[in-house]
Amino acid sequence: MAFAWLKGHGTENDFVLLPDADGSVHGALEPAFVAALCDRRRGIGADGVLRVTRTEALSAVDAAAAESASEWFMDYRNADGSVSEMCGNGIRVFAKHLFDAGLADSPAVIGTRAGDRTVTDHGDGTYSVTMGPADVRATSKVAANGRAWEAQDIRTGNPHAVAFVDDLADAGPLTGAPEHDKTVYPDGVNVEFVVWRGPGHIAMRVHERGSGETRSCGTGACAAAVAAMLVDQTMLPATYRVDVPGGTLHVGWDVNDELTLTGPAEIVARGELEWLS
Amino acid sequence: MAFAWLKGHGTENDFVLLPDADGSVHGALEPAFVAALCDRRRGIGADGVLRVTRTEALSAVDAAAAESASEWFMDYRNADGSVSEMCGNGIRVFAKHLFDAGLADSPAVIGTRAGDRTVTDHGDGTYSVTMGPADVRATSKVAANGRAWEAQDIRTGNPHAVAFVDDLADAGPLTGAPEHDKTVYPDGVNVEFVVWRGPGHIAMRVHERGSGETRSCGTGACAAAVAAMLVDQTMLPATYRVDVPGGTLHVGWDVNDELTLTGPAEIVARGELEWLS
Repeated sequence: MAFAWLKGHGTENDFVLLPDADGSVHGALEPAFVAALCDRRRGIGADGVLRVTRTEALSAVDAAAAESASEWFMDYRNADGSVSEMCGNGIRVFAKHLFDAGLADSPAVIGTRAGDRTVTDHGDGTYSVTMGPADVRATSKVAANGRAWEAQDIRTGNPHAVAFVDDLADAGPLTGAPEHDKTVYPDGVNVEFVVWRGPGHIAMRVHERGSGETRSCGTGACAAAVAAMLVDQTMLPATYRVDVPGGTLHVGWDVNDELTLTGPAEIVARGELEWLS
Repeated sequence: MAFAWLKGHGTENDFVLLPDADGSVHGALEPAFVAALCDRRRGIGADGVLRVTRTEALSAVDAAAAESASEWFMDYRNADGSVSEMCGNGIRVFAKHLFDAGLADSPAVIGTRAGDRTVTDHGDGTYSVTMGPADVRATSKVAANGRAWEAQDIRTGNPHAVAFVDDLADAGPLTGAPEHDKTVYPDGVNVEFVVWRGPGHIAMRVHERGSGETRSCGTGACAAAVAAMLVDQTMLPATYRVDVPGGTLHVGWDVNDELTLTGPAEIVARGELEWLS
């Protein structure tokens, strides 16, 4: 099969984009095909696939698309082929493609399985996306390599445990998931280890459930920024800078409890390819 | 810039192939461009680049090409952009492309910076490549995670230290290079941890200098097979099976001290791409 594709990344969270406006190229998008494409040795390699489809083409088969007021829908799949709701780094790359290709104007409403999101092109290589509210809960313990920390439970689409540490190296090599309270996080948790870099400026490492330590996590950056703003008792609206291994993000939190994630998006290659595997 | 490309792998050692018959598409092939292509997050991602060029197009600028009797030359670059001599897994993928595209017939002589090699298509998805002689030297100690083993020094294009272990897990997580004798290996060494699986059948893990633990290493499989044949006092010619994390290889050693590496080669995608980075 031959099809159009692009490769892009946001703070080193990388994606294969599959333009498929009317849904006719990839049909239902087979999980096995997505997993094969994303395999970094036996395929092309990516953290996930972003299919670029008109919302109306998916509305008969996808409940979120049926409810969306958007023109374009981000059909996001994880590297293992499973369906996923939303990716804060991926949607910036998705929107950049729409803007570059003249398929949408900024600000653009983009449909996702987590609801409609608005992406704004700042014209300097960075893009902002609305990320919904923060659900701040209690604290619990996380532990890694024999050390333990109190961690703030914050839900930003995904469950997060945010632990402030003295040094990002304190957690040691994260070859497995940090220990966490299974009663608080029955479905697992993304754990952020955070240090202060200055006023309104933090840096973090993140271990994502199912993926291991990653270069960046959009919902994790939001959770870490919220945790830092709570410690600082910051007046809202506020914006914090969050350094991740793959680059720099900025997280805004406003008086309506709306989070905004701002960061770079790059598209490095585009073309047609014939899939032979 | 727009150009043809393919992605392929041999036992999960993966490559971007760049067809460039007369050398006019990529010129001198800039190291920074190779490194950008091979970056698994910010580029496409690969262990290396195999430029497919007619030998005569490189003979003015490359000493090995000038001496080669081959029609096609494998201009191999590591993922960091540096020039490399030879790759036993890569040359099978390179040859498969030549055979598939009707650019050569099996057996094909292919020029490399380590000299001319002959690749044979077995017609069942596997390919054999001549790997040159084995230089068997002394033993020395290697150590990892607090355990130490006697290791056989064997040179098969690269320096190798082959240690037989009771279980592949014995070496533990290979997050850094195993300790080795710097006087024996002043330029570093690839370390193979090997277990017996049956008569003429071994399995190995490999830590490659500069790359860390990898899914496969062609010269390492050759070194491990030679070490096993020496332990077995095997009559030559002989062929041993070597299981690597990325698949299965077979290594032959003949009475003329010529090694032959046999294994699969797959090409998973091909097309034209526009490089935007």
